[in-house]
Amino acid sequence: MTNKDLILQARQEYQDKLGLKAKLDEYYLQQQTKYGLKPLDKIKAYLPQKLQPLAIRRDIAIAHLDFEPILQLIAESKTFTVVSGLNPSSPLHLGHKTLFDLLKELQRMGAKLHIPVTDDESYLDEKTDSLNLAQELGDTVVSQLKDLEYDQSRTNIYLLSQQTEIYRLAIKISRLVTPQQLKKVFGDEALENVGQIFYRGALQLAQILAPQLPKNGGPKHILIPVGIDQHPYILLARDVAKKLSMTPPSELVLRFQPSLRDPEQKMSGSKPETAIYLTDSETEIKNKINRAYTGAVSVLEVHQELGGIPEICSVFNILSYHHSDDSFVNQVYDKYQNGKLSSGGLKQIVINYLVKQFTLTM
Amino acid sequence: MTNKDLILQARQEYQDKLGLKAKLDEYYLQQQTKYGLKPLDKIKAYLPQKLQPLAIRRDIAIAHLDFEPILQLIAESKTFTVVSGLNPSSPLHLGHKTLFDLLKELQRMGAKLHIPVTDDESYLDEKTDSLNLAQELGDTVVSQLKDLEYDQSRTNIYLLSQQTEIYRLAIKISRLVTPQQLKKVFGDEALENVGQIFYRGALQLAQILAPQLPKNGGPKHILIPVGIDQHPYILLARDVAKKLSMTPPSELVLRFQPSLRDPEQKMSGSKPETAIYLTDSETEIKNKINRAYTGAVSVLEVHQELGGIPEICSVFNILSYHHSDDSFVNQVYDKYQNGKLSSGGLKQIVINYLVKQFTLTM
Repeated sequence: MTNKDLILQARQEYQDKLGLKAKLDEYYLQQQTKYGLKPLDKIKAYLPQKLQPLAIRRDIAIAHLDFEPILQLIAESKTFTVVSGLNPSSPLHLGHKTLFDLLKELQRMGAKLHIPVTDDESYLDEKTDSLNLAQELGDTVVSQLKDLEYDQSRTNIYLLSQQTEIYRLAIKISRLVTPQQLKKVFGDEALENVGQIFYRGALQLAQILAPQLPKNGGPKHILIPVGIDQHPYILLARDVAKKLSMTPPSELVLRFQPSLRDPEQKMSGSKPETAIYLTDSETEIKNKINRAYTGAVSVLEVHQELGGIPEICSVFNILSYHHSDDSFVNQVYDKYQNGKLSSGGLKQIVINYLVKQFTLTM
Repeated sequence: MTNKDLILQARQEYQDKLGLKAKLDEYYLQQQTKYGLKPLDKIKAYLPQKLQPLAIRRDIAIAHLDFEPILQLIAESKTFTVVSGLNPSSPLHLGHKTLFDLLKELQRMGAKLHIPVTDDESYLDEKTDSLNLAQELGDTVVSQLKDLEYDQSRTNIYLLSQQTEIYRLAIKISRLVTPQQLKKVFGDEALENVGQIFYRGALQLAQILAPQLPKNGGPKHILIPVGIDQHPYILLARDVAKKLSMTPPSELVLRFQPSLRDPEQKMSGSKPETAIYLTDSETEIKNKINRAYTGAVSVLEVHQELGGIPEICSVFNILSYHHSDDSFVNQVYDKYQNGKLSSGGLKQIVINYLVKQFTLTM
């Protein structure tokens, strides 16, 4: 290929990337307007920017349902409750860290945290061969979570299989949910055995609603941060809450941290090439970032002319999802977008950031 | 109607009752030959008549699956295990007593008894409004059962909701059973909510298999006395046992004690006119027996000529299912069958027996 051909190809590449950005924007717009969901603009207007968790001010959180009572409690400096479960069979990666950091910020805003580590889920979804193995993995994850420096007095990290009160509540709930309801929410493929049906139709709902048991203080406002695919499930949880005379939980909908390889996919613990694990070495980090999909075209000259597209760049998104310094992230965004920063330069910035982060905190 | 008409009508009545007997015989023959089941004749040949429990020597037990290892343990005077659950929302009636008496006789033959009182089942099947109420009923039934003079050292009567080890085993089992399997065994009508699916597809199986947990001594032979409608369920339990490297449980199939009103129906705790409750007063007993369906025609003269049909007589069956004296029961059978004992006389015998039984033991 001649130099001219390469340039023409790179210009087309830029158009393709713009198209991809438009496609993703359209997708998230659709997600934001699902039944019951509202955009976050009003919430953001009421919450001073300095108080906004990173996930909110960076638009990782894209929608909510019934966040207003939580906002009210924050305004009154009162306690609210957040429940966020974790499946211990997936190795922890940056996608989890987004959530852990959000939980920490919510705790600073007054949240009491409940983090069930769902060993039974790992077993029932056949991610582990035995309940014992799931429990061992769960024990390890519980220890890891306890190292994350949450305020211990307002944090309840527990291994699901050890909480008999959750199972009692699950039995209670299980009468209130029909298999038809579940099928609508999950489809058949996540309901392949009796255990998956009980887990999704009762046990997981019990984790969400357990803080409202009389012995835990009765009805209260609960916030559930969820991925965009879980909204129908929250509608089910709200329905069950009403039947139990509990307060329907509020929802904060988060984008998934994108895969390193494909902005349309999510970072996945079962696909190492898509994810930075919290245990990755410096070499692994370098290799993964250097092979990642970026928002810049492949010819530097054209990048300098047209600029990059940070929104679809899995490398830039690591900064956007994690780096706490807004002005630094904005600077990188501007330079990358107007072509002054190359994808190679961006990769180096992100590698340095991750290596520093990981050697300091992991 | 003339006297002659009445006699002709009574003769027709006798033919109808004979037809009903033939129909019931045919029905039980069909039940006996379901997949995997065997008749009890060989078992009875090996077991001296004096040792045979009433339910076996009176042909209340009609078939078995894999009873041979249990017979072997009895022959060697070794312990075997019997599991027989009880739903506490049904008031106890004579049908239950058949089972309680069988359990007592099996215990004399070396059985260790496990009797789960299934409060969760009552709740999930909407027999009680709340889990708490189900548990209260269960507590009462547990006390009643403990009064029945089983050998306490070899009897484990427990309230299901209080046994966390059963729930752990149920979670383990729940991955091994598909909704399709359950649907085949129960049809849709017994699987209307997530809890019924979990109960029938895991929790009840866990009760059956829990005696084989390592902490309970590992794999062992277990006998399950069941009603004729539960055979497909035992096949499922045997399938699950194999997957867990446990011993598939053995099955003893029992006829249901017939309804007082209709020999084709079973005595049911939810239909008072069909059942003698263990708490019925003398007056209630008299009223119920006097209104019961019998094996005798309505004209005494014809009864004396043609005789009665004890097999379809709900009044005679009370003796057959419960009275321990074989020669007495045989005498009554003969006299009734050859018309020397009227249905009125039979009713008086049964009323006297029940009143004496109940005032002595209840």
